[in-house]
Amino acid sequence: MMTETEFLAALKALPLHKGARGLADDCALIEIGGETLIINHDLMAEGTHFRPEADLADVAWKLVAINLSDLASKGAEPIGILLGHSLGGNDQRFIQGLQAVLTAYNIAILGGDTIAATGASTYSVTALGRATSKTVPSRSSAKIGDSVFVTGTLGCAMLGFEGHSRFIEAFSRPQPRVTEGQALAGHVNAMMDVSDGLLLDIFRIAEASGVSIEIDSAAVPVADNSRRHECMIWGDDYELLFTLPPGIKPAAKATAIGTVEPRGFVPLFVDGEPIANADGLGYQHG
Amino acid sequence: MMTETEFLAALKALPLHKGARGLADDCALIEIGGETLIINHDLMAEGTHFRPEADLADVAWKLVAINLSDLASKGAEPIGILLGHSLGGNDQRFIQGLQAVLTAYNIAILGGDTIAATGASTYSVTALGRATSKTVPSRSSAKIGDSVFVTGTLGCAMLGFEGHSRFIEAFSRPQPRVTEGQALAGHVNAMMDVSDGLLLDIFRIAEASGVSIEIDSAAVPVADNSRRHECMIWGDDYELLFTLPPGIKPAAKATAIGTVEPRGFVPLFVDGEPIANADGLGYQHG
Repeated sequence: MMTETEFLAALKALPLHKGARGLADDCALIEIGGETLIINHDLMAEGTHFRPEADLADVAWKLVAINLSDLASKGAEPIGILLGHSLGGNDQRFIQGLQAVLTAYNIAILGGDTIAATGASTYSVTALGRATSKTVPSRSSAKIGDSVFVTGTLGCAMLGFEGHSRFIEAFSRPQPRVTEGQALAGHVNAMMDVSDGLLLDIFRIAEASGVSIEIDSAAVPVADNSRRHECMIWGDDYELLFTLPPGIKPAAKATAIGTVEPRGFVPLFVDGEPIANADGLGYQHG
Repeated sequence: MMTETEFLAALKALPLHKGARGLADDCALIEIGGETLIINHDLMAEGTHFRPEADLADVAWKLVAINLSDLASKGAEPIGILLGHSLGGNDQRFIQGLQAVLTAYNIAILGGDTIAATGASTYSVTALGRATSKTVPSRSSAKIGDSVFVTGTLGCAMLGFEGHSRFIEAFSRPQPRVTEGQALAGHVNAMMDVSDGLLLDIFRIAEASGVSIEIDSAAVPVADNSRRHECMIWGDDYELLFTLPPGIKPAAKATAIGTVEPRGFVPLFVDGEPIANADGLGYQHG
């Protein structure tokens, strides 16, 4: 067996579509008939992404939501989803969660596949959307001099996961920033959604863009001031992280948390402290 | 837990995109910028779709091939695939099979997701293609008076599964009829790929089109004459099944095996024998 890093390296050596952006971005792009289609595919597996005792209504919501969050980071207007479903859990609750998230985001089912599997369940969603901006934002287009912004408050999902009642929904039913993504896409330089932890995702933008990013951690809006660092490295918040040229105000509610600078000896500085590699900055998939 | 039929019924009650064709067809259609995109999503799970000891190179080939077969049944020109991969098996062999099928069909990877899962592995592929005909064939458009055709020879996958050396590849590395599908799409009335067994899929076209179909079983090209009926109900052959208006010759090599008639008291007649329901006609998913 291979690690995720090894497998990804092997995939990159196979024939890649140019819309795959070298498998370095969150979504694929297909240019067709003068429009750009944005596509994303995510899996969730029992035991890895959710606990066996999880409410499958929450799992269905989250599976669709994390795909919509990827579309949001491209400013896409969602069209619909294809669902891959393993029967065998509480399928009725899965359907109820699916209905809730489809209704909340006004999207529809396009198709999919249903299987009877043995053992731990795996669910998959492919989400499709239409680009709303001429240039589709990427991770790699942060420019020197840009300001770095993030929507919302970080750490809510962490507190929800720990059982703090006010934040349960932030963890179990995240709300992807679909509207904000569309408002921002035409103006930002780089954009991505924060899924694996704020600092890790900032590190990734800096690496992909060949720049350094300086973060002022005191400026980061966090759910628990006494656990500021944890809020910045825990994932699952599904906020949007983006950079804007100097002097441009964000077209959606967001907080300035840092600046893009010429590439120094490391990609990331937090309060002036150099961060040389991504270890410990967030959730790294196995 | 629900059966596949119950789950599908529940899905049909959710918001459906019009391109989902009521979840009664093999692919979804998205009209965008004057073109039509064709999309399909299929899962394969260890224990259900392949044996734990299967060569993952064959599994990767087959997973992509069955998705391409669905695209072929719409006459689509493949664009690329998104892959959902569970790490943990012989991932190196999976990559090798993937490379082989991508190269054979000249398609590229668009993106996907890789996870570390526990237990039985599940793999998913979303395949996208571009419609090549103005009207995209469906299951439901067979017309009275049409002739019914099938490409290739039925039963090869069955013999391969049983270990007959000449047919091993027919089972483990099926060759979807991508070129034939494109040649046929502009002329056929109804078309689908034969995945679950010839008679079952004919029954489905008849049901969806509101007609009866009369099959002459002696005309069906089979891999083993002494097991004609088994060849017609075993699945996994991935041939194309289609109907053409009278007098039109097929634009790809195929055999005439029956005719479309006004709806009688059952959807299917085999050598004049009425078949009232689909039980036993092929592989019915659990």
